[in-house]
Amino acid sequence: MSVLIVGSTALDSIKTPKAENPKLLGGSASHAAVAASFFGPVKMVGVVGEDFPKKYLKLYRKHRINLDGLQVKPGKTFHWSGEYEVNMNNRRTLLTELGVFETFTPSLPDAHKAAPFVLLANIAPALQHHVLDQMRKPKFVVADTMDLWLNIALPDLLRLLPRVDGFVLNDSEAHQLTKEDNVFAALKKIHQLGPKYVIIKKGSHGSILSGPQGFFIAPAYPLHKVVDPTGAGDSFVGGMMGYLSAAKGSVDANIRRAMIYGAVTASFCCEGMGVKKTTTVTRGAIEQRVKELAKLTKF
Amino acid sequence: MSVLIVGSTALDSIKTPKAENPKLLGGSASHAAVAASFFGPVKMVGVVGEDFPKKYLKLYRKHRINLDGLQVKPGKTFHWSGEYEVNMNNRRTLLTELGVFETFTPSLPDAHKAAPFVLLANIAPALQHHVLDQMRKPKFVVADTMDLWLNIALPDLLRLLPRVDGFVLNDSEAHQLTKEDNVFAALKKIHQLGPKYVIIKKGSHGSILSGPQGFFIAPAYPLHKVVDPTGAGDSFVGGMMGYLSAAKGSVDANIRRAMIYGAVTASFCCEGMGVKKTTTVTRGAIEQRVKELAKLTKF
Repeated sequence: MSVLIVGSTALDSIKTPKAENPKLLGGSASHAAVAASFFGPVKMVGVVGEDFPKKYLKLYRKHRINLDGLQVKPGKTFHWSGEYEVNMNNRRTLLTELGVFETFTPSLPDAHKAAPFVLLANIAPALQHHVLDQMRKPKFVVADTMDLWLNIALPDLLRLLPRVDGFVLNDSEAHQLTKEDNVFAALKKIHQLGPKYVIIKKGSHGSILSGPQGFFIAPAYPLHKVVDPTGAGDSFVGGMMGYLSAAKGSVDANIRRAMIYGAVTASFCCEGMGVKKTTTVTRGAIEQRVKELAKLTKF
Repeated sequence: MSVLIVGSTALDSIKTPKAENPKLLGGSASHAAVAASFFGPVKMVGVVGEDFPKKYLKLYRKHRINLDGLQVKPGKTFHWSGEYEVNMNNRRTLLTELGVFETFTPSLPDAHKAAPFVLLANIAPALQHHVLDQMRKPKFVVADTMDLWLNIALPDLLRLLPRVDGFVLNDSEAHQLTKEDNVFAALKKIHQLGPKYVIIKKGSHGSILSGPQGFFIAPAYPLHKVVDPTGAGDSFVGGMMGYLSAAKGSVDANIRRAMIYGAVTASFCCEGMGVKKTTTVTRGAIEQRVKELAKLTKF
């Protein structure tokens, strides 16, 4: 089955303690779509400007990402610039130029409206609503978010949560949303807002699922060096949704392994600037890390 | 087989956002010995003053902890007072009255010198050395530490590390010791200082072992509410060493499960002020949580 991924498609200028790279391929949809592409067919919806480099379109196509829903509009592509602190955990936004993203309306090509799996990657909740309004009975919808939307679009986000099956956020966002310091107490409160599946991302500490079958504590893949964590969360949820959309059986039967695949695609994302590593890795290398994670957690 | 535990035996006055409790039974040896006592015979070495409440001696005895090495000296028992911040992760020391602990010399009763498992719980590295000087060929020695010793007794600690099989520290201490932000890079550097087994504790994020058989990523037991985390690290390493000392087979064959048992004894520690919960819990309740952790991490 295919997964529809809607989110931002951007140019990222990323400064880390170790490197500075201008206008890399970025955005939540780009990272998630590349990660998902290792597992099955991906339809990506987003918007870029006329300045969007042809080589990035080629990169999407190399990953067999369906671009029928990628709008090309007069103007500039969304440009984000950020800086990471020494520990690579704290990110500071230096610049945000919305460009064509400012007036983006995610209109779905007709063929996209029947996609069984939908990932509403990090994007304004109002746009996530707009996508759902167009869908015909999707099987499993997951929304990602970021602190920005909790700050400026909380009512939209709160209206979205009852409409999705799964909600993914990081631990500081979970704290911001629920005022709970304890992650398990936060998970309980987030379920009360609607989603049946809630996943809290904790970066190098792994992730936690709370769902109909209880909790699942997922490890992160051990990395000795993080080059650039931008897009790791998008790669996590993209890999997870890609795996889920391709796997046989129920969501409940597959979601734990799907999170492990997400953890692995996220680990590759961290090992290169932008999508550099995730666009050169192989499915075999992904399988190898999944096996390693199974060994690393066995007792 | 038995485990010898040397560390501090103290009275803790602990302030948390939710409670304030004066002069609870505390100290690294107390927490570790109680945790270890669920698995096999424990010999504890420490010092208390004449003010040490009889009820706490009773509590040790209830756990069948051998007190032949517990010195009772004229003067006051070590008294520590601390405060936790709202998120229960950051601790601030309000007061430290060393009392009889100031001149403590851990002299081992002869029967203690042949103990196969030795836990050098958190105490000055010079005293940890003194204990090892008296031991006859122990099978497995683990040292714990704290940031204080990294600050004021680093040379002693660095001389200790080649003398121990295992070293346990938390993630911020690992960073302080190695200047590495990345935990796996830090682990590599700590091995170079001597210990074959290095365990980094990450509180609610679990723990990581690096040893001859590679890494093991251990979860923490999910707690919805932390009452008092004081002694959780000591309970972790105490439970681990207690389990190891009682288990049949090699350290390598048992250490992963031992860490899980440590995680569970630590979880109970967090659920009560001081040793309140760990001294009322049953082995059955521990086994139940170990089973749950196995389920929570399976994929």
